[in-house]
Amino acid sequence: MDVVSLPLLDEPSMLAAAERQGQLTKPTGALGRLEELAVWLAGTQACSPPRDPERVRVVVLAGDTGAAVAGVSAYPPEVTAQMVAGFGAGTAAVNVLARAAGATVRVEDICVATDTAPEVSRHKVRRSSGRIDVEDAMTMTETEAAYAAGCAIADEEADAGTDLLVVGDMGIANTTVAAVVCAAVTRCEPVAVVGRGTGIDDQGWIRKVTVVRDALTRVRLAEAADDPARLLSVAGGPDHAAMVGLLVQAAVRRTPVLLDGVVSCVAALVADRIAPGIASWQVAATRSPEPAQALALARLQHEPLLDLGLRLGEGTGALLAVPLLRAAAAALREMATFAEAGVSGRTEQP
Amino acid sequence: MDVVSLPLLDEPSMLAAAERQGQLTKPTGALGRLEELAVWLAGTQACSPPRDPERVRVVVLAGDTGAAVAGVSAYPPEVTAQMVAGFGAGTAAVNVLARAAGATVRVEDICVATDTAPEVSRHKVRRSSGRIDVEDAMTMTETEAAYAAGCAIADEEADAGTDLLVVGDMGIANTTVAAVVCAAVTRCEPVAVVGRGTGIDDQGWIRKVTVVRDALTRVRLAEAADDPARLLSVAGGPDHAAMVGLLVQAAVRRTPVLLDGVVSCVAALVADRIAPGIASWQVAATRSPEPAQALALARLQHEPLLDLGLRLGEGTGALLAVPLLRAAAAALREMATFAEAGVSGRTEQP
Repeated sequence: MDVVSLPLLDEPSMLAAAERQGQLTKPTGALGRLEELAVWLAGTQACSPPRDPERVRVVVLAGDTGAAVAGVSAYPPEVTAQMVAGFGAGTAAVNVLARAAGATVRVEDICVATDTAPEVSRHKVRRSSGRIDVEDAMTMTETEAAYAAGCAIADEEADAGTDLLVVGDMGIANTTVAAVVCAAVTRCEPVAVVGRGTGIDDQGWIRKVTVVRDALTRVRLAEAADDPARLLSVAGGPDHAAMVGLLVQAAVRRTPVLLDGVVSCVAALVADRIAPGIASWQVAATRSPEPAQALALARLQHEPLLDLGLRLGEGTGALLAVPLLRAAAAALREMATFAEAGVSGRTEQP
Repeated sequence: MDVVSLPLLDEPSMLAAAERQGQLTKPTGALGRLEELAVWLAGTQACSPPRDPERVRVVVLAGDTGAAVAGVSAYPPEVTAQMVAGFGAGTAAVNVLARAAGATVRVEDICVATDTAPEVSRHKVRRSSGRIDVEDAMTMTETEAAYAAGCAIADEEADAGTDLLVVGDMGIANTTVAAVVCAAVTRCEPVAVVGRGTGIDDQGWIRKVTVVRDALTRVRLAEAADDPARLLSVAGGPDHAAMVGLLVQAAVRRTPVLLDGVVSCVAALVADRIAPGIASWQVAATRSPEPAQALALARLQHEPLLDLGLRLGEGTGALLAVPLLRAAAAALREMATFAEAGVSGRTEQP
């Protein structure tokens, strides 16, 4: 995982977008964050006003973690594979919300504990990851393979013409892994990063804090906190490493990304270590109740568009922000200017 | 404006929706406020799971206020009529965001200062309103006519099969009027309700506070604060009275409403005096920077879905929430249950 130098957003397009924004028939700044979003999209597309993101794609990376056996989730580990099957059947939340947002769903089994359908396991790295409170999540070779899998998926999407990438995750106990990685990078205590995940009770939360604490001890002993590859190997997992690769390569390929919940936001934190400034290619869609997400967002200076109490993952929160992006782009494209509409501008104030 | 007794949301449909919500393949409560929205829609439709709101209609009520001459807005009064023409041409923000949300736009000139197209002025009550800091906004007869116009528009929409009503406003200086009405109902000081509107400077803000203070003095002298009709006559305006009528009659006709910015939310506050409990038929879509909106929302116990810094009116903020409602309904309709998908449920925790 060498340091990657990213392309910059297209400055002339952003300036042109901002200038047009100021001429539209509305009070200056009255569309609030929609105006920023349109300027950002113009910068990612190098085109002002921005096009409607036609091919919007949700990529859900699925995987199991050995830590799930430690009783850190309200749901049993077999749910990961069952949900991957549900994604295939088109009946999970991500499928429904993708249809509503005009997006298509791609699922990739990166490290589900059991075998899944061949069409979703072409990038599979291994079955589950290690139990990070007592052993490494995976070898360094597997870490590089998982990262490369994420990069390959981003390349495939860019080659297929994806205009907007929505990232999501599925995996019982994966908020535990995200908490460890976030605490390692931000140097926070376990209690500051551990949330309720899918809805554990107080006893489950205590078990989760214990797993996070033990995994963080292993990170310290391995001196892995500042080395993304080592960190992902010691206390991450193939799905988390693949998410990091997906984010890095998406930015390399100038593909704008909507971040979802805690797993993608913590992956963005690690991706920023590999590709500094990666946040400029991303918008944070949704605030999650997980404290690790808030920490990651603050570090990346992301302010989520939505705060609706979602904590499902799968890319569902990010999908809800897709219509906001489409609306922002449409407003900049289709609204008349004051001059075109013959509307009087601001009064010079006395 | 006699007190109106409203129908209740359909309790059995809401119970059925909530029960189904708990069986879908997601952690309990993991779709956050989307779950509430689906249950609410089920209650308004008396149908679980709720249908997709097919006919979504934005009704924009336009009008001028005599107070605009007092230098309380950053834009000149003629902009109201120019924007009404823009709505007709389909090039204003509301048109673009309505297309993006799959909604259609209806504009009604209630009291624009000049003549507008015949097709938008069938419900026109008068030209502009009085200058509320020195005179009544309108006569009591005009007040009743404006309220009846709003009711008639709601009836026409209900008869045409509108599934979801999005309300918006257009009128230079109408946040000044909304501030007066809000302060009168909530007994707040002028400085607590006056915002920057479309973007006035400090001097403009001071002029606006002065107008609000003088209008509130007139409300007190007329003892109009607790009489909706008197209040709207003394310090409201035909467009504001029509908005109140629109909201009341929409609830009578069991049509769910998305509230927009400060004008519609303050109208909802007055509507609640006429039709107690009206908030149960409404969802607040968007938080506005206007302090009067925050006061009105707090009184009605509404928590807006979005907080994106919009301050445009026209129904634009409310339109951005339409995809959230559609997504909420789709999730409840189309997601599989744990039983259907063969997914394991929660682990009984030790």
